[in-house]
Amino acid sequence: MSHSKRQIIFISDGTGITAENLGHSLLTQFEHISFETTTIPYVDSVEKAQEAYAKIVAIGKKADKKPIVFSTLVEAETYGIIKKAPCVCLGLFHTFVPLLQKELGVSSLNIIGNTHGFGDDDHYMHRIDAVNYAIANDDGANIHRYDEADFILLGVSRSGKTPTCLYLALQFGVYCANYPLTEEDVAEGILPKPLQPYREKLVGLIIEPARLQHIREARHANSRYCSIKQCQQELRFAEKLYLQEAIPYIDTTKRSIEEIATEIFALTGKKKHII
Amino acid sequence: MSHSKRQIIFISDGTGITAENLGHSLLTQFEHISFETTTIPYVDSVEKAQEAYAKIVAIGKKADKKPIVFSTLVEAETYGIIKKAPCVCLGLFHTFVPLLQKELGVSSLNIIGNTHGFGDDDHYMHRIDAVNYAIANDDGANIHRYDEADFILLGVSRSGKTPTCLYLALQFGVYCANYPLTEEDVAEGILPKPLQPYREKLVGLIIEPARLQHIREARHANSRYCSIKQCQQELRFAEKLYLQEAIPYIDTTKRSIEEIATEIFALTGKKKHII
Repeated sequence: MSHSKRQIIFISDGTGITAENLGHSLLTQFEHISFETTTIPYVDSVEKAQEAYAKIVAIGKKADKKPIVFSTLVEAETYGIIKKAPCVCLGLFHTFVPLLQKELGVSSLNIIGNTHGFGDDDHYMHRIDAVNYAIANDDGANIHRYDEADFILLGVSRSGKTPTCLYLALQFGVYCANYPLTEEDVAEGILPKPLQPYREKLVGLIIEPARLQHIREARHANSRYCSIKQCQQELRFAEKLYLQEAIPYIDTTKRSIEEIATEIFALTGKKKHII
Repeated sequence: MSHSKRQIIFISDGTGITAENLGHSLLTQFEHISFETTTIPYVDSVEKAQEAYAKIVAIGKKADKKPIVFSTLVEAETYGIIKKAPCVCLGLFHTFVPLLQKELGVSSLNIIGNTHGFGDDDHYMHRIDAVNYAIANDDGANIHRYDEADFILLGVSRSGKTPTCLYLALQFGVYCANYPLTEEDVAEGILPKPLQPYREKLVGLIIEPARLQHIREARHANSRYCSIKQCQQELRFAEKLYLQEAIPYIDTTKRSIEEIATEIFALTGKKKHII
């Protein structure tokens, strides 16, 4: 029996996340082909490499073409086993590490499972604290800890504040609060009082009215809240406020969460710490 | 003036996240060297490539060694400009895409900014919904939507439930609720009633008592809640419950959020959709 989808295998001595990211990035350039993916994580011994080899063989037998394997295996021995499997093997580490060793003038450490591993404790606690901070300071629920914030995101309801805050916390350990601009806030036309001492931390979000309506309707169909008129009005006021207060702002309409986060760093000039 | 840190530049026609991941992964193998990183995102035109070129030159002048550039530029023209800059240039796409083209027997689409771009709307809405679901169903706050859950995480307070749920939502669009095992729950020794219809969705978290005490103490020092005795007792009961009810469970002690998420997929056999 043959599958029409091309089989893709991500293999790693750790979580497999880097292999997945790498492979996924490359395969977005071949969107016209159908793929089926399998991740084989924690291949951190010869035995596990042999099991992975067997799995590659099994996956290959189901399909009419050789599986494509994206590897972030660090060790030469495990990688050597996979390399001999009936597959096309793209080895991230084995392609680039020799170049880096030459350029840096030192040997690599050959540490397995390092990229998305536990790391140091302070780092881990900071990241968890950032997530807890984002939740505690979501949607204006808590305005007493704004002095701890790296950023405070502003925007009308459903403009993308919460997912962006959580993404920044999880990926970069950034302390990000968010404050909803209510109808009353925007109608008054002045910066809400709790935000006034923190102007330099503010980033505004904006979105196209039709898009906002679409998002709001998915949850609260046919209410005033999701009428196009209401969306237009709230957004017009919000944008006016950003301009008046010189708050940098981002249009989230056609942006992914990752793109909004990237823009926040670019707009504010704040350096991100890559986890 | 010369810097002692080696300069690293991530360059991309999109967010730069893949370039950062790739570079960060590789550089974890050289932890004994100090790096300073700069990301240059959205290099999606010849003009921007020329600006990026100038930036590479400027960064190079501050240092005594050539910067190392990790590129995920897709287009040959922009990549060609960067390649000529005074740097060591590692091009992810230009290394692997020709191999993939040959293997897949088709040309790549040369789509820029694709990896972490907006993608399709359904996909975006699903991801946002998953984040909203995780927040609404955090910490047993809402037990009425468990039928929608992909997973329900169980664990005592501070065992890692919330960050894991949010990570699964953001990265994989997974609907993940979490339910705190209280002292009363675990003392009774029966599976809490709201969970009983959803046994096949349950995943337990466990953690070493000393680690739990450390995490709890960071927030509530000197309370009974964070005594070692209390932590030991809660965890003993929780583990007993998992064993008795045949709930698969994970020790989060020395695991990053990414590793916990990877284990959840491995334990349950549920396939992850890579975003």
